[in-house]
Amino acid sequence: MADVVYDLAVIGSGPAGQKAAIAAAKLGKKVAVVDRQEMVGGVCLHTGTIPSKTLREAILYLSGFRERSFYGKDYAVKQDIAVADLAFRVQTVRAREMEVIRAQLKRNHVATIDGTGRFQDPHTLQVKSTKGERTVRAEHLLIACGTRPAHSSTVPIDGKRVIDSDQLRQVDRFPAELIVVGAGVIGLEYASMFAALNIKVTIIEQRPAMLDYADREIIEALTFFMRQRGATFRLGEKVVSVENESGQPVVANLESGKRVRGDAVLYAVGRQTNADLLDLPAAGLAADERGRLKVNEFFQTSVPHIYAAGDVIGFPALASTSMEQGRLASCHMFGASCESRKEAVPYGIYTIPEISMVGKTEQELTAAKIPYEIGLSRFEELAKGQMLGTETGMLKILFDPKSLKVLGVHAIGESATEIVHIGQAVLSLGGTIEYFRDTVFNYPTFAEAYKVAGLDGLNRVARPH
Amino acid sequence: MADVVYDLAVIGSGPAGQKAAIAAAKLGKKVAVVDRQEMVGGVCLHTGTIPSKTLREAILYLSGFRERSFYGKDYAVKQDIAVADLAFRVQTVRAREMEVIRAQLKRNHVATIDGTGRFQDPHTLQVKSTKGERTVRAEHLLIACGTRPAHSSTVPIDGKRVIDSDQLRQVDRFPAELIVVGAGVIGLEYASMFAALNIKVTIIEQRPAMLDYADREIIEALTFFMRQRGATFRLGEKVVSVENESGQPVVANLESGKRVRGDAVLYAVGRQTNADLLDLPAAGLAADERGRLKVNEFFQTSVPHIYAAGDVIGFPALASTSMEQGRLASCHMFGASCESRKEAVPYGIYTIPEISMVGKTEQELTAAKIPYEIGLSRFEELAKGQMLGTETGMLKILFDPKSLKVLGVHAIGESATEIVHIGQAVLSLGGTIEYFRDTVFNYPTFAEAYKVAGLDGLNRVARPH
Repeated sequence: MADVVYDLAVIGSGPAGQKAAIAAAKLGKKVAVVDRQEMVGGVCLHTGTIPSKTLREAILYLSGFRERSFYGKDYAVKQDIAVADLAFRVQTVRAREMEVIRAQLKRNHVATIDGTGRFQDPHTLQVKSTKGERTVRAEHLLIACGTRPAHSSTVPIDGKRVIDSDQLRQVDRFPAELIVVGAGVIGLEYASMFAALNIKVTIIEQRPAMLDYADREIIEALTFFMRQRGATFRLGEKVVSVENESGQPVVANLESGKRVRGDAVLYAVGRQTNADLLDLPAAGLAADERGRLKVNEFFQTSVPHIYAAGDVIGFPALASTSMEQGRLASCHMFGASCESRKEAVPYGIYTIPEISMVGKTEQELTAAKIPYEIGLSRFEELAKGQMLGTETGMLKILFDPKSLKVLGVHAIGESATEIVHIGQAVLSLGGTIEYFRDTVFNYPTFAEAYKVAGLDGLNRVARPH
Repeated sequence: MADVVYDLAVIGSGPAGQKAAIAAAKLGKKVAVVDRQEMVGGVCLHTGTIPSKTLREAILYLSGFRERSFYGKDYAVKQDIAVADLAFRVQTVRAREMEVIRAQLKRNHVATIDGTGRFQDPHTLQVKSTKGERTVRAEHLLIACGTRPAHSSTVPIDGKRVIDSDQLRQVDRFPAELIVVGAGVIGLEYASMFAALNIKVTIIEQRPAMLDYADREIIEALTFFMRQRGATFRLGEKVVSVENESGQPVVANLESGKRVRGDAVLYAVGRQTNADLLDLPAAGLAADERGRLKVNEFFQTSVPHIYAAGDVIGFPALASTSMEQGRLASCHMFGASCESRKEAVPYGIYTIPEISMVGKTEQELTAAKIPYEIGLSRFEELAKGQMLGTETGMLKILFDPKSLKVLGVHAIGESATEIVHIGQAVLSLGGTIEYFRDTVFNYPTFAEAYKVAGLDGLNRVARPH
């Protein structure tokens, strides 16, 4: 076995690694994926996307969240939602998904090598597992090693009352009051989920604004909605220390002198990559100060036969974009032609309510001095929104007032991450906002918001008669 | 008031009437809508789409249907789901939606005239209400009078144990065993909802196949799924009589000699139009044997200034298509240019699980001798499907194996009526199946099914290497 030389060895079996491996295998290449057996699927499957989104669906359901406008604010399917109820679902989904990934790799004849890999030289990995060590040689390598939560000496994690997002599943009961440090995607997703469970959440963020690549109006809607659920935002505030004494509430001390009390702290300020575990110098590589690898547009590192994709290369660090990066990396390394609609990559943020966007934001267009007009629809005016008891939700289409071409789509609310793909297709295929006026949409659906927003937008640019 | 001559008088305030009125008002025209005050919104709002889809959402939720794969087949949020629980939601939504429609008409300065209208002459309606009679004169008229359930002497309706779909809300408790006569959209939607409530349903349909305009594979999946929920299908069977004697089960006698017993019968064999109430001859018009009006591509009847739209003109009789017909009718009558993407009208069928489609079916393409290839994705393999405990669902893309253009999209399962619009946009804008390969989709979503189906389809047409 040690003498097999692979066409491609992939470090990490998360979304980037999987899709790179399968794309290469489909090109007839001999491929190996190196990862610890129990970690197949990567962070995405074990502590990231899949557990958090499964938890989210369970919370939405068990908390009766969607039905509250019908049955009152305190309605819940299970009055006491136990961590065990939620953990059960997460485990079920994880087990199933792990099977799907394993079967997919096997079906494509991708070798899976158990263990953690590190570079021995630019073409060789040393793979260590509980069963021993071996080397794996390959023509090309893809680093898709992912990340782990970043820690800070100011907020010492104890895994019990002061935890990072990977440790959430260790918690055996929910706090009544939670302090979330960091209002990035991970911090906000969890903060909004806990708020949906009627947990009093305080979000502390050092920067003055949250998710600055997103549309301001959408983020303001999210903030408004979370505040209605009892959340407190402390933006532009820095945590200088945390008091964590047994028998006492946990206290976060802010630079401004405020003391924020709670039962627990979730520390969610960024993630650091696992590149430090790979002995990069042996491959002739170096990471930046946050462990990220720099790549060109083809996902090549400074060593041309070594590629990198996924969270290890930084923003946006989403499962969806990582998959695409992995696929594109494999296509490039084996000279396969590969199209990608890079101008229309959607972002999905699974807060409650969820957010999704594609194309440009108002801020970006304004900064670039590109005039635009908007078309807006509020979900509460849609029949579907009323049926589901949806109180918050909107769809905003940005378009060129002259050519009428769609420039961006921004949505918040139920199904936002699904229906954004409708606007994405129109944007990507060069359609105008007239498309939405001239197209029949199923009734009742949330997709109908495009019709309403399209008509609204066209009204705004209509000549008076 | 009686002397006002309107540019347009609309008979009926359902989806077709509303959108026609608003489109004309936006063109600066003086518009009146004639309908009984308590019926504003039409059948769609009062006994049709809105109540049935609201009931459906409530059943999905209260029955714990989506969560059954996690918690077992007998799991339900409310062990005894009362009709009152469901009726409450329907009433709430109806009241809200009625307000939305009234506000929308008012905002656009559309006059609403209370009463039932009938033709006095080709330009004059006589409108009768509880408050008296008046006449309404108009340059143009739109007949959007809608339909009511068709009845048959073979199945005498008593409004208690033998009911039509308009009478469902009168039922004060659910039957344990239900006989549904008619497997059209309405019959199937209700049959699948009752099956989801663990009611034993028998569906009797005279024709050998159901929904013959839909994809066969999708309908077979629906049938399979409904059978798993205990439904029995009797296709190609005719009801010759119904026994409905107090203290005894209701019995439907079939021509084949079978006797089907149940606690109640839902008679859902088609609908007849309300055109018989309009005194059409006074306008110089005549309906066909089922009360339908014939129109040309611009929705003009044989009397050019009188248009007709919505259920009164027949198939597909969906709220979504009726809205578009109303809009197009108004544009044509006032000479406004009006685009419509007729080649890509979606159909949404709100069975459990729901069905949606756009473009051609396999049957149509085969009949037209147009070669096609398919790309398939099953929802159970999607991360999102697993999170929601979705056991059934698929997306099928039909495409031209040479040009790779998308020819049709067929979906069954959670969110099918939403995500069909993604394929609709690609089809409508002339995209190919490569679009789905080259596009990033949010993860996890049901929309991801397009990615999977796209790759599957491309694999099927790939040259061997």
